[in-house]
Parts: sequence; C-alpha cells; structure tokens
Amino acid sequence: MAGLAELIEQVPPLDELALSASRQRQDLLTKPPGSLGRLERLATQLAGVTGKARPRLSRKAVIVMAADHGVTSEGVSAYPAEVTAQMVMNFANGGAAINVLARQAGARVIVVDIGVAADLPADLPIVHRKVAFGTQNLAKQAAMTEPQTLAAIGVGAEILMSEADLGLDVVCLGEMGIGNTTAASAIVAAMTGLPVADVTGRGTGIDAETWTRKIQVIDRALKLHRLDPAQPLDVLAKVGGLEIAGLVGVTLAAAARRIAVIVDGFIATAAALVAVELCPQLRGYLIAAHRSVEVGHRAALERLELEPLIALDLRLGEGSGAALVLPMLDAAVALLDEMATFEEAGIAAKLVHEIRQN
Amino acid sequence: MAGLAELIEQVPPLDELALSASRQRQDLLTKPPGSLGRLERLATQLAGVTGKARPRLSRKAVIVMAADHGVTSEGVSAYPAEVTAQMVMNFANGGAAINVLARQAGARVIVVDIGVAADLPADLPIVHRKVAFGTQNLAKQAAMTEPQTLAAIGVGAEILMSEADLGLDVVCLGEMGIGNTTAASAIVAAMTGLPVADVTGRGTGIDAETWTRKIQVIDRALKLHRLDPAQPLDVLAKVGGLEIAGLVGVTLAAAARRIAVIVDGFIATAAALVAVELCPQLRGYLIAAHRSVEVGHRAALERLELEPLIALDLRLGEGSGAALVLPMLDAAVALLDEMATFEEAGIAAKLVHEIRQN
Repeated sequence: MAGLAELIEQVPPLDELALSASRQRQDLLTKPPGSLGRLERLATQLAGVTGKARPRLSRKAVIVMAADHGVTSEGVSAYPAEVTAQMVMNFANGGAAINVLARQAGARVIVVDIGVAADLPADLPIVHRKVAFGTQNLAKQAAMTEPQTLAAIGVGAEILMSEADLGLDVVCLGEMGIGNTTAASAIVAAMTGLPVADVTGRGTGIDAETWTRKIQVIDRALKLHRLDPAQPLDVLAKVGGLEIAGLVGVTLAAAARRIAVIVDGFIATAAALVAVELCPQLRGYLIAAHRSVEVGHRAALERLELEPLIALDLRLGEGSGAALVLPMLDAAVALLDEMATFEEAGIAAKLVHEIRQN
Repeated sequence: MAGLAELIEQVPPLDELALSASRQRQDLLTKPPGSLGRLERLATQLAGVTGKARPRLSRKAVIVMAADHGVTSEGVSAYPAEVTAQMVMNFANGGAAINVLARQAGARVIVVDIGVAADLPADLPIVHRKVAFGTQNLAKQAAMTEPQTLAAIGVGAEILMSEADLGLDVVCLGEMGIGNTTAASAIVAAMTGLPVADVTGRGTGIDAETWTRKIQVIDRALKLHRLDPAQPLDVLAKVGGLEIAGLVGVTLAAAARRIAVIVDGFIATAAALVAVELCPQLRGYLIAAHRSVEVGHRAALERLELEPLIALDLRLGEGSGAALVLPMLDAAVALLDEMATFEEAGIAAKLVHEIRQN
C-alpha cells in the first residue's frame, strides 16, 4: 500500500454541497421539520460522506479482523486464547452471530486472519494475511514492533481498497480476539489519560478477581511503556493489537474512498480513536453503532464526540452492533430519497407555509 | 366483532414451552451466554408470543389509524386539523415517512379512516371505517360516546382479524391525528394520576404559550370528567380519540391471535395503557419501539414496565418508530434460528464447558 502519510492525505473533507443539498431537501419533505430526529442528521452525514445529495447504501461489508493477544497469559480473559481460532472457523462456516446479522442486513462478511496464534487451514475461505502469531504480552514488552504495526494497518487498508474496488458504500468494523478488551482499555487509558479502573470493564464476562488483575496488568503496561497520547502509532504498537491496527487501516482507507465507517463497540472505538488522532479529518466519516456495556467505551466515544445509535446490552463484538444498525442507515437515506415533498403531496401552499413556520 | 369481553377472554398467556425452549437454545449458541443482550430477551419474548421455539416474522403490517380531534379548536396544536386528511392522502400515495419505513422493513401499510373530519374520496385506497367526523372537544364534553368508543375498538379489532387471516406475525401501531398528543396526555394523566404538566409535551412542535394552553385545556378536561383510572374505557371515551380507541382494538385482537404488537411512541403507548388496563395478560405481547421526546411517554412506559428499543429523537408518529425496529426483531429471531450451536461449530467440548462456566 501507499505509506501511512499518503493514506492520511487522501482523506477528503465531507462534501459541503451534498451536505447542504440534503439539509434543504429534508425541510421540503412531508413531516414537521426535524421530526425524524437523528435519522435526518444521519442521512445528511451520509450525503457528506458519499458526496451525493440523495445517497443510497446498496453495497455493504463487515470486515472482521481476528488476532490473538500475548497478554492472555496474564489471565485477563474469561476464555482461553484457542477460542479466537475456533470462532474464525465458525465465521468461515457462517454460523456466528455476525454472519446472521450481516445476512439480515445484506452485507458481505470478510474475515481476516491478521494475527491468529494458530495455523489456520490454508483452504479456509477467509483472507489470510497473518502479520504475526498474535502479539507479545503488553505487560512485559511492546505488543507489536513498529514494522508489525504498520504492516497490520497496511493489511487493513489494502483489504478495504480491494473491497472498495468491488463496490462499497459502507463498512462495519468487526473484530475477534480473546484478550482484546485489555488492549482496548490500555489504548483508551493512554489516549485519554483517565485512570485504568475507569476504562476497564468485564469483557465477555470476567469475575471481580480477574477484573482486578486486568487493571493491574494494564497499569503495569502503562508504567512500562510511558506512552504519549500525541504518539498514537506508538500507543497502538505498545499496547494495541494486530486486529485493532488492521481496523485503523480499514478506517483510514474507507475515509480516503468516501465510504462510511460504522464503529461497532469498544474495540472498534479504540481503533477509531487511534485513526482520528492520526487523521482528525476522518471523524466525519464515523458512525457509532452500539453503546457497549464496557465502561471505557463511554470515555472513548466522548473523546470522539460520537453518540451511538443503539444500546441493547450487547457484549459480543464481531461487528454485531455495527451490522445491527445498517437497516437504520438504509432507512435514513431511503426517507431522504423517497419521501414526498409538500409540493409533490399537493399539500396546500397555506399549510406548507404554516408548517414551515414551526 | 365479538363483544369486548369476549375479545379480552381470548388473549392467551405467553407459551411457556416455547419460552423455555428458546431460552435453552440461546445458551447453546456460539456466543458467551447473554452476550446478545436485549436481542436474546426479544427473541424469547417472540417465542412466547407466537408459541414457536424458533419463531420467524415473515408477515408484517403497520396499521395507521387516522382521526381528528375536537380539542384542536382550543388551539393546542402547531398544525391546522386539515393536515390529518392531507396526510391520509399522502399515506395513500405512498409518500409519507411510514410508507418508506414500511417498504424498507418489508411491512404492508393499512391506512384506516376511523374518524377524519373530512369526506375522503371513496376511491382512496385506504380502509374506510369512519366512526365519526372527529371527536368532540374533550375540554367541554366527552370526546366520544360510549357506543362510539366501542365501535372504534371494534373497527380496530376487525381490521386486525382480517389482516391476521391474510397472515400476520407482527403488527405496528401507527396513527395520525392533529391534536392527538393532547388526548394521549389526558389519558396518561388520568391513568397515572400524575400532574398534567408532567405528562404534557410539545407535540410536533408548539411554542411555550401554546404548551401552557395545552396544559390548561387538559386540566379543565380532567376536572370536568372526574375520571377513574379503574375505568379505562370511560377514560378513553371522555378524553381519548377515535384512532386511539382503534389501536386499543388492534392491540387486543393481535394478542388474541398471538401476534406481537410493536408500540410506536406516545400515542400508541397511551392506547397500550388502556388495553393493558382492560386486559393485563396482553402486556407480554407488547414491544416498545421508540422512546419519544414527549415527557408523558416515560410515565406511560413505566406504568407498562416497558423499555423502548431505540431513542432517536423522533417526534413524527405514524408508526415510524415501530417500523424502524422491525429489522431489529428480524435480527433477534434470525440469530436464535440460524446461529450455530457450540456442537455444530465443533468447538471442543472442553471449551464449551469452560464457556458455560461463565
């Protein structure tokens, strides 16, 4: 791929003409102004992203980046690391939650082995782009080297570009990696400066003792690496993960191609945080999907000034929350595109006038 | 239709076998137990409603009841009453928000003139079942007579039964009626005993002066009618509306036929409140869709012990919030039906065991 700096430079601002045309059209539609609430703002954002005043989202994908985490050796997760590989097999067979949700939403699923700590069958129908057999233990050394980090970002960007060439209007960030809430909490703590306990949750379901250990492990990592929030690439390398770096690449490349990015939950938001720090301009391309029960998610969202569309107590990852909001995005742009205007509906000019007064 | 009492008697309890079979299956699926949050509870509820352990919702409808309100002569609304008829024409032409949202969700739209205060063209492709040319001014007399109220409930029930005969798994409650937030606030105040100001909002967008007047009007109505919350039918007649009574009928009949009822926003919730008071057993058939910005909505939801699935600042009505959550319901039941179990996915027995421990 082109270097990271070139990629960042390619991210355009939102299209002002499309933004303003879509706003104007919203006010002509047969409804009280603003009465579709967030759906109106969402449709307008998607106009700005795509550069089309009346956008449609016909081509959708979920990119699920899978990788393992050396920090699992510290006993921070409810699950053994082997589950990462098992779930990749499940994704490949179409039996996981994200497969079902993507089918429902008309999205294709691209599963990427970017760093699973196992030899996956070569004929498994996934994208085989393993950068390493998992990260190192972030509590003892850097999770990734800088070249590994850049390579993983590059994998994400390249995959997005290939998908964009096939046709893509919106991409969902998905991930699988036992231990990755530890990495995400470490990133969010480093980037926001908040105490580790304030951004560390129960992952997929750990007990109080494991939770205390998880906080201690992250605290140790932050002391060891002395991270600078102004150096997001270094934060990512030292305490991140291969799948998180991959999602940073997906996000940057999507924005460069005017493709909306649906940020799933805590892990994806940690990736978005790094991506926005690298390229503030891409913030406008992001749509937050689901408010995770992970406490660190709120802090990361506040930093990004994003408000998730739904809150359904999901704590699964995989991109499940992102896939779930795709129909809502479709609805938002369909309303903008298909609703009758007051004039088309033949609603009398006097009424239109009165209505516009409100 | 059969009398109201017969209808109420026909509402069965949720199917315990289906409820427990669906719960058991959830725990076999390839995800941490409970990690799909509200989607799991939703799928289980739909199993109990339909009596099927793995339900699907292939046949969907939005029933939009339209009627006018005599209380608009008090100047409580931002819109002239003529807008009700104009919007019915718009629904019939497929140009309104609810048409677009229903198309997106694969739901049919049934528009019912149950009390529009205008002669609508006889060839308009809607269901013509006008009970009256709008209600009387609830601040001065009963909005409806008891026979009118029962007739409107009957219309709703009959339409639902016809739709059920065509095939129906889930119904969305929709409404259109300038002035109907005033009626809904009056119902909620009467049923909950809360001060009128606490359950009265800005409707589709009134100013502070109109809002004060709206509260005074409802206060006057409550003093005039001396309502008893234990007499829900009388509350409905005195301060309700024809479309609200129609939705009460739809709700009762849907539950009688084991069809899930998606309660849209404030108006639909007021109807649900009356229906549940008439038949407490039907509560399990209700799914709250959207948290309205109307302040009275929260009180009504608390009374019903319902928690809406989404909150997108909508204030449109029409059933828009209900139609928006249909894809979420589809997702919930698809996950239950289509996800692989740990055994199917070949995830090792040891891992299954460890996972089940969590």
